[in-house]
Amino acid sequence: MSSFTVTFLPYNIKVSLDADEPLIRAAMAAGVHVNASCGGQGVCGKCRVVIESGEVEGGISEKLSQADIAAGVRLACQTRILSDVVVRIPTESAVDASVLNKTFGERRTARIRQMNFNDLKEQGLFMPPVEKRYLALPEPTAQDNLPDVSRLISFLHANFGDHRLEVDLPVLRKIPDVLRADGFRVTATIARPVRPDGKNRIIDIQPGDTTDRSYAVAVDIGTTTVFGQLLDLNSGEVLAQQGDFNSQISYGEDVISRIVFSEKNGMAKLQSAVLKTTNQIIDRIVRKAAIDRDNITHITLAGNTTMTQLFCGINPRYIRRSPYVPASTLYPPIRAVDLGLALGEHVMALFYPQVSSYVGGDIVAGVMGSGMYRHEELTLFMDIGTNAEIVIGNKDWMACAACSAGPAFEGGGIKFGMRAEKGAIEDFSLDPLTLEPMNITVGNVGVRGICGSGLINIVAALFEAGVIDNLGKFNRDLPTDRVRETEGIWEYVLARAEVTQIGRDVVLTEIDIDNLIRAKGALYSGCMTLLDEVGLGIENLERIILAGGFGSYVDLEKAMMIGLLPEIELDRVTFVGNSSLLGARMSSLTNHIRREVTAVTRMMTNFELSETASFMDHYVAALFLPHTDTNLFPKVMARMAARRHPTP
Amino acid sequence: MSSFTVTFLPYNIKVSLDADEPLIRAAMAAGVHVNASCGGQGVCGKCRVVIESGEVEGGISEKLSQADIAAGVRLACQTRILSDVVVRIPTESAVDASVLNKTFGERRTARIRQMNFNDLKEQGLFMPPVEKRYLALPEPTAQDNLPDVSRLISFLHANFGDHRLEVDLPVLRKIPDVLRADGFRVTATIARPVRPDGKNRIIDIQPGDTTDRSYAVAVDIGTTTVFGQLLDLNSGEVLAQQGDFNSQISYGEDVISRIVFSEKNGMAKLQSAVLKTTNQIIDRIVRKAAIDRDNITHITLAGNTTMTQLFCGINPRYIRRSPYVPASTLYPPIRAVDLGLALGEHVMALFYPQVSSYVGGDIVAGVMGSGMYRHEELTLFMDIGTNAEIVIGNKDWMACAACSAGPAFEGGGIKFGMRAEKGAIEDFSLDPLTLEPMNITVGNVGVRGICGSGLINIVAALFEAGVIDNLGKFNRDLPTDRVRETEGIWEYVLARAEVTQIGRDVVLTEIDIDNLIRAKGALYSGCMTLLDEVGLGIENLERIILAGGFGSYVDLEKAMMIGLLPEIELDRVTFVGNSSLLGARMSSLTNHIRREVTAVTRMMTNFELSETASFMDHYVAALFLPHTDTNLFPKVMARMAARRHPTP
Repeated sequence: MSSFTVTFLPYNIKVSLDADEPLIRAAMAAGVHVNASCGGQGVCGKCRVVIESGEVEGGISEKLSQADIAAGVRLACQTRILSDVVVRIPTESAVDASVLNKTFGERRTARIRQMNFNDLKEQGLFMPPVEKRYLALPEPTAQDNLPDVSRLISFLHANFGDHRLEVDLPVLRKIPDVLRADGFRVTATIARPVRPDGKNRIIDIQPGDTTDRSYAVAVDIGTTTVFGQLLDLNSGEVLAQQGDFNSQISYGEDVISRIVFSEKNGMAKLQSAVLKTTNQIIDRIVRKAAIDRDNITHITLAGNTTMTQLFCGINPRYIRRSPYVPASTLYPPIRAVDLGLALGEHVMALFYPQVSSYVGGDIVAGVMGSGMYRHEELTLFMDIGTNAEIVIGNKDWMACAACSAGPAFEGGGIKFGMRAEKGAIEDFSLDPLTLEPMNITVGNVGVRGICGSGLINIVAALFEAGVIDNLGKFNRDLPTDRVRETEGIWEYVLARAEVTQIGRDVVLTEIDIDNLIRAKGALYSGCMTLLDEVGLGIENLERIILAGGFGSYVDLEKAMMIGLLPEIELDRVTFVGNSSLLGARMSSLTNHIRREVTAVTRMMTNFELSETASFMDHYVAALFLPHTDTNLFPKVMARMAARRHPTP
Repeated sequence: MSSFTVTFLPYNIKVSLDADEPLIRAAMAAGVHVNASCGGQGVCGKCRVVIESGEVEGGISEKLSQADIAAGVRLACQTRILSDVVVRIPTESAVDASVLNKTFGERRTARIRQMNFNDLKEQGLFMPPVEKRYLALPEPTAQDNLPDVSRLISFLHANFGDHRLEVDLPVLRKIPDVLRADGFRVTATIARPVRPDGKNRIIDIQPGDTTDRSYAVAVDIGTTTVFGQLLDLNSGEVLAQQGDFNSQISYGEDVISRIVFSEKNGMAKLQSAVLKTTNQIIDRIVRKAAIDRDNITHITLAGNTTMTQLFCGINPRYIRRSPYVPASTLYPPIRAVDLGLALGEHVMALFYPQVSSYVGGDIVAGVMGSGMYRHEELTLFMDIGTNAEIVIGNKDWMACAACSAGPAFEGGGIKFGMRAEKGAIEDFSLDPLTLEPMNITVGNVGVRGICGSGLINIVAALFEAGVIDNLGKFNRDLPTDRVRETEGIWEYVLARAEVTQIGRDVVLTEIDIDNLIRAKGALYSGCMTLLDEVGLGIENLERIILAGGFGSYVDLEKAMMIGLLPEIELDRVTFVGNSSLLGARMSSLTNHIRREVTAVTRMMTNFELSETASFMDHYVAALFLPHTDTNLFPKVMARMAARRHPTP
């Protein structure tokens, strides 16, 4: 993907933009406001910009006159750039320009940072849990008529130093013919033990040299979505990936409703639903990568406790009943076929361990995949998906908790809330003078609703601009018809019916804002509580790792503005994306993680927040924007003060 | 079973007899000849004896006059005793009596000696590979909400010292509900590792205390017959046993014909045939013992290499092709359900290891079950079944070989040969003067043929009486019409048509005798060859252990008479019966055998006799009765000399 530099005048802010993204995204990244309410299909015709130099395509619309077009005016939401460009934002007045010039600045999202294969190799850690070995064995003679298995084992020992080897039944069944299929030239697949002194199991044998074809599958079993990746164990590359909704959704949106359904004789249905989704994903990634399924050697899965139990067919009933007891935290290697996975008979399924009923394998995978368990720095790890969990700690200790944040971050409980699908407002800016919106949607299409990152960005912008107060209530005498009362409830009109895909005004209500405040309050007070329990405070945090579906689009300053994230230097915040999948991939590539994960899991002390004395106080204090204790957010407070007294 | 003493006059020999056995068996045991050609249904009317004192029932026949009956004459084959009795054998003349008095003497069969449960307990060796543990766990609380598996494992560790515990998927699936079915009172079934430092696997969990119901199955997978025993792991008792023909027989009599059939796409058929037989046997013993199949914790199987591979679905093709390579010698524990066994999902199938393609798990089981691997004495172990194998050695070394003895010992290649089923002559005596026979059949019914032990006993008797010479050829001018030439082939008439069940004369031919000589020659020369290879001779042998189907009925003196067994003190010969089943039972009761068997198997040096230089010379020399080298059989020679020059 080529990318070019966009320079915005009159602010002289430069940002880079991928060639396939519309110009309006560069404006958002630059912190430059451009009115744009329709979400990006050229319907509203508001996002007019002037191309002063450089080559662009598109952006010409019936909303523009011939004179406009001749003067270089384009609709930013429809314009792609073909070179570095200089773009001027039309301003209404000099005052505007002056105010805006002070206000705007490059937006800061979290740096994306994931461990990768080269890191592993550099650290000498590359060692998949399953590995192929090629052997050219001597053929048996009357003087050397070792049994087939003994021949294989003795040469594995002699040539590779492998010891404590044993074979599985499928290998016993194949070995006589496979050895003789290609003159005793064979490739053996060896599953390494978790403990270095454990047994090495020969799980497969193939004729000839197939060591160049060695693959693994990593899966994140999410409550809402399942993601799978096909990994090349020689290069460490992701050959293909695929995500899909977890078919269990039709039986309930969250883990609790799934458990309730399972208790009504629904467990088998739930198990086969997630299995179906996973098998379809495996089919797709195998086809995409055009590999032979027989060369997949193992599958690593990470999911929360309920998802893991349902996947394995273990009754989750007691997860939702006090005292919230999961069946197990550790899972042995399980034959994939025993679980119903459409993989070879030899394939081992390796599950991430759980900490507790509500801090599951997905979080442990995040802790492992993000590497937080290896560092000295006091780190806050937050995974915000269908459920929200937090881990605080470092290489020496960790405290973790599930936060009852509710589904607001995935659009739940929000009037026009939706998942981050096409048409969801994911990014937002507000003209501080006109209070006109700049909506950016997933897929750059017409507005349909609001997703989690959009919600945060909208509320932060409304708060920063003084449209709402620190209780999340609308200021009721603003010079804009976008703030209004409808059937007794105050709201901000993000997009009017005529520019949306749904033919209705898309609005954000006070009730929506209240739900977000409760959600962010739960997360923030969760952090405070864990830190309290170990005798530390927010000021001790040295690093934040964000994980989950929406993390990469959240404007960090805005997340701090509403008090979702503790205030910390922005460059100390990193984003790891789907950390459950990341952890699954990493432990598919190195057994070191598998070896360390048990100790890490044991180290992770679980807190049931609802049973921790200080939690409720922290929670109530957090139901403000950004917080009752403004000392916790000095930068936000400084910024708000500057905003209310702008230097003209 | 009550037994009484029988005193035979005029010889004054006393033997004991079970109350349900016919009197004629006491005569045979006493070495007292009674003419009896029909096999025991009173048809020939020859076996007249006089009851001088004591209480008897039966034995009255139309062949006897009222005067005979009044005088106490009875047919020995029809008479059961109800008390100690004194029985007189009618003799024709004083010469007879005198000769017979010298000749007769108690017959010596091998002492039956099997290791048993009490031996194990006394030696501190009782430790089944799978064991049940009862635990009353504390119920979880908010302060103690350990995951179910962790709760179980931590209490197993605390209460029993079990360590390195892990669970299988079936246990994970059951544990939440089973723990709560009886208030956290549960019984865990633990599979012990072979190596003491290996993992202890929790393979099952049941509500309540089921430790009093703990069973195992031991199986001998024979080429011809499959035997199963149901074992009580608390008492060590055999609760039920059952044998049946291996259904594979319909596809071939011996291992070679089975392998040939398997190569014609027959492997799946052979596998399902033996599985069917085994599952039927399991059904029968479970029903006989009236136990709950769910409380069977493991199954131990022993079979020869071909039987083991076919049972597991492993192509046996290369077993019969030079250089005779088996798939494996060691087998991992295999889930019984994966093999198709009708047992619980948690049941582990443990196979005896093999030494080579023709010295299999049945022989290793015999070595372990007989305990020969634990003793100092130089022991010869012979297992004579469908195949014949020998092991020579002691606790420090062992040499073993399969002998191409052919099927003569199971009736194969013998004109009237048959398996040891009802009507088969199994024991035999010859009147040295009249050359009239005394036939004893399996089941004490009319003669139908000759089984292996009968064959040995008949040939030895014919040789001792001078009816055949040391080449096995008939002496052609004897004063009896029982020795005759039919269609150019000389034969001895064991039973005339009118007294048999088959309406034809049952005879033993010179060809039959030649086949037996080749068979015993193969075995004896096998011993000689193995001893040669380790620099020892027959005279060094200190002990013989006989195993196999017919061993218990073989008259040891007669087996030595024909040179089947090396000459050794009779009380140094023991009989262990079905040693494969014995070994399977013993290792079901103690993991010590499983722990030692790998080392024992490695210690057993296999010799391919056909490729051992000295074998052919030894073989040719053994094709005599008893042997070309008469120095090897001094007692036989002395006895023969005494016979030919009887002291009147």
